[in-house]
Amino acid sequence: MAQQLLGGPVAEAIYGELSERVEALRKQKVHPRLAIIRVGDDPANAAYERTVLKRAETVGIAVDVHELPADVNRLALYADIEGINVDARIHGCLMFRPLPSSLDELTACNMISPHKDVDGVGATSLAGVFMGLPEGFAPCTAEGCLKMLDFHGIEVRGKHVVVVGRSLVVGKPASMLLLARDATVTLCHSSTADLEAIMRAADIVVCATGNARAFGASCFSAGQVVLDVGTNTDADGVFCGDVDFVAVEPIVEGITPVPGGLGAVTTAVLLQHVVQAAEARER
Amino acid sequence: MAQQLLGGPVAEAIYGELSERVEALRKQKVHPRLAIIRVGDDPANAAYERTVLKRAETVGIAVDVHELPADVNRLALYADIEGINVDARIHGCLMFRPLPSSLDELTACNMISPHKDVDGVGATSLAGVFMGLPEGFAPCTAEGCLKMLDFHGIEVRGKHVVVVGRSLVVGKPASMLLLARDATVTLCHSSTADLEAIMRAADIVVCATGNARAFGASCFSAGQVVLDVGTNTDADGVFCGDVDFVAVEPIVEGITPVPGGLGAVTTAVLLQHVVQAAEARER
Repeated sequence: MAQQLLGGPVAEAIYGELSERVEALRKQKVHPRLAIIRVGDDPANAAYERTVLKRAETVGIAVDVHELPADVNRLALYADIEGINVDARIHGCLMFRPLPSSLDELTACNMISPHKDVDGVGATSLAGVFMGLPEGFAPCTAEGCLKMLDFHGIEVRGKHVVVVGRSLVVGKPASMLLLARDATVTLCHSSTADLEAIMRAADIVVCATGNARAFGASCFSAGQVVLDVGTNTDADGVFCGDVDFVAVEPIVEGITPVPGGLGAVTTAVLLQHVVQAAEARER
Repeated sequence: MAQQLLGGPVAEAIYGELSERVEALRKQKVHPRLAIIRVGDDPANAAYERTVLKRAETVGIAVDVHELPADVNRLALYADIEGINVDARIHGCLMFRPLPSSLDELTACNMISPHKDVDGVGATSLAGVFMGLPEGFAPCTAEGCLKMLDFHGIEVRGKHVVVVGRSLVVGKPASMLLLARDATVTLCHSSTADLEAIMRAADIVVCATGNARAFGASCFSAGQVVLDVGTNTDADGVFCGDVDFVAVEPIVEGITPVPGGLGAVTTAVLLQHVVQAAEARER
């Protein structure tokens, strides 16, 4: 039976530390503030927004929600982003994606000031992750993988980590963060041959493909740690990860459940970035 | 006995195509021009510079060499870069590295206009490589690895490529370019456990560590293709790669010799980028 790597305690530890840092900022008359841009009304985004609002309130971070209609034009979106960039009261900006296809998501992401790009969506943040430099911020879920491993005392250095999925939200940045911590990293994807054998040979497996319960018992082996980044809804409308938890949990040494795993950590990392941005501006 | 994957024919094919493109540009009164910034007198840089000058002349690309003293101050270097950025006659800039430690190499690299960053040293170019976008240019040696494989008809898609070395000049960008071509990529380095076993299991191995003949017969297996990116000088002053060619060549299916392998391709890719930059500005 595997150790369940729960996200709750990881997030709580982060929030405990953040509350103190927010308090210290308040003494300097700085009130950390996040702006959320939500275009349209995707229900998954709305759910994440509610979580962020609740957690931000607990920690003492203010949040402004900029709700834009799904048919907003490009210039109106850019004007909204620019308003956030120049507003000294705002320290971080989270823009939900995907944007409607009528918009230019890449340009919009790159318009967010790197100092406020707390979700790591712009080219400056991503270049920082790739180059191993402290520019901008790392994508929250990718960084959350490291926080999860660290909190649970799982060593990364010298370990072979197989990352399945090559998105800029998780797979690629998680690979670079793991590499910076001296893991040996294999990046796999839909064209990978012998994927199951490659996964079975790893010390740590990160699944980030967005396919409900796509990875079953045949993909894993004893002693492994499994990070399931998937946030999927199966055919019956049940929220689940990329890993078939029931089948895999008995095999491996540690595994993050979905729900209950990385989701909570991602939110905590996002709010940590907001506080970090506020602190950086005061220095 | 392995097929020797020679760089000469790859480079010649590129130069043949470039000569035609340069001729087409000349008809539009555009004369492709490269500026080289060389600080100090590192002999390896001077040797590469002579190669670039010779090849550029053959293809019809003009080259200006900006020779700066090793003790040049930061602002003088920045002024030189800015002069290149604003000079409409210049299409590409190659700045030799490493810069003396008194200079800020990162800032200098980022100052080169992405439109002229033909060696892919700035954050915009590297973000482009990481994000899979056509911004700036890929580092020449990393791109040269792909040119070498393509020219010799070696399929990349679905293959397992092990890249040893995680520099921003070769290892990381080569990994991203290979990933974009649907290879499964494992990034290894000095902290990798069981490196030899990982290397032996690959379809293609890219060695880019800068350690003379560090990889011998025990690292390779039958059927593999080996790209040796190393440009080292051994204890006897002999120029050699990262791979012990004499020991490894009988084992594998294909291998790039050093010298005679990727070096020539790197130069050709650099000049191809200069022509590309000139064409892009005319569009």
